Amino acid sequence: MTSIDQPASDTAPSKAAFRDAMARIGAAVHLVTTDGPAGRAGLTATAFAPVTDEPPHLLVCLNRESRTAALIRENGVFAINTLAAGQQELADVFAGRTHLHGAARFSHGLWREGALGVPVLADALASFVLRTRSIETLGTHQVVIGALTGITTGEAHAGLVYTRRAYHAL
Amino acid sequence: MTSIDQPASDTAPSKAAFRDAMARIGAAVHLVTTDGPAGRAGLTATAFAPVTDEPPHLLVCLNRESRTAALIRENGVFAINTLAAGQQELADVFAGRTHLHGAARFSHGLWREGALGVPVLADALASFVLRTRSIETLGTHQVVIGALTGITTGEAHAGLVYTRRAYHAL
Repeated sequence: MTSIDQPASDTAPSKAAFRDAMARIGAAVHLVTTDGPAGRAGLTATAFAPVTDEPPHLLVCLNRESRTAALIRENGVFAINTLAAGQQELADVFAGRTHLHGAARFSHGLWREGALGVPVLADALASFVLRTRSIETLGTHQVVIGALTGITTGEAHAGLVYTRRAYHAL
Repeated sequence: MTSIDQPASDTAPSKAAFRDAMARIGAAVHLVTTDGPAGRAGLTATAFAPVTDEPPHLLVCLNRESRTAALIRENGVFAINTLAAGQQELADVFAGRTHLHGAARFSHGLWREGALGVPVLADALASFVLRTRSIETLGTHQVVIGALTGITTGEAHAGLVYTRRAYHAL
């Protein structure tokens, strides 16, 4: 380990400092969707990670007050639809920037019923259908881990990446 | 919801199909590091997500057999160093592609001792110092959630994003 004399410049992790640091970090953009007895909903999320491929599991972090998180808790199934380059309009719709809520958001985009009855975006970069395995609440959010039951990859080869508060094709 | 007649094309989530789908999804590249009574280690990871900003927490998913995961379990502290554009050599070193292991990896890069004694990369896009809050094991991997105690943002403004099995500056 090379040491340098420069004093540590760690700043207190205020909410603003945390958000500014996070805004530098590129992340793919996903529409997290659910449907079932409790109803249909979806939102835009970038807090996503693969957990393990043996057996395949993915996670997303969702605001626990969101309608989508509430319905995933009740339906027990969800999809993660990774957006392709050019799909920023859908990202905006599902982020609530057009003031559409609940099932009304699905009037945008070309959707089909995927495995387990969840809404799968037909022209996503990739879609993952999952059964909820665990939900851990932490502050304002929940870490939702799902066991993968289906994968669809689309024809698109470039994705949508969000960083510095803007969308980029990559 | 617009329905389309196209039959569902979900494929069985084999490990190969899962990896192929994941390879399409862009992700920032991080060096996850630890130091303390159990020793120093670090590895390259892309499975990262912000959990909540009230209070600030982040997570990474690590192979539980890795030396870094073992030492994070023992030290109880770690850092997530998000790489800037141009730092792919460090990504390769900490991914084991140069066959360096344990503390030897830190001979590459300019490191300082951050808060809690963890190795912080001086010229990272951003660095986060964390105290381990929870570790959940799932198959081959562990979801490690950390409570944020320090943030450093560097002078770099473009990050390193990994997708389609290659590094990109973004």
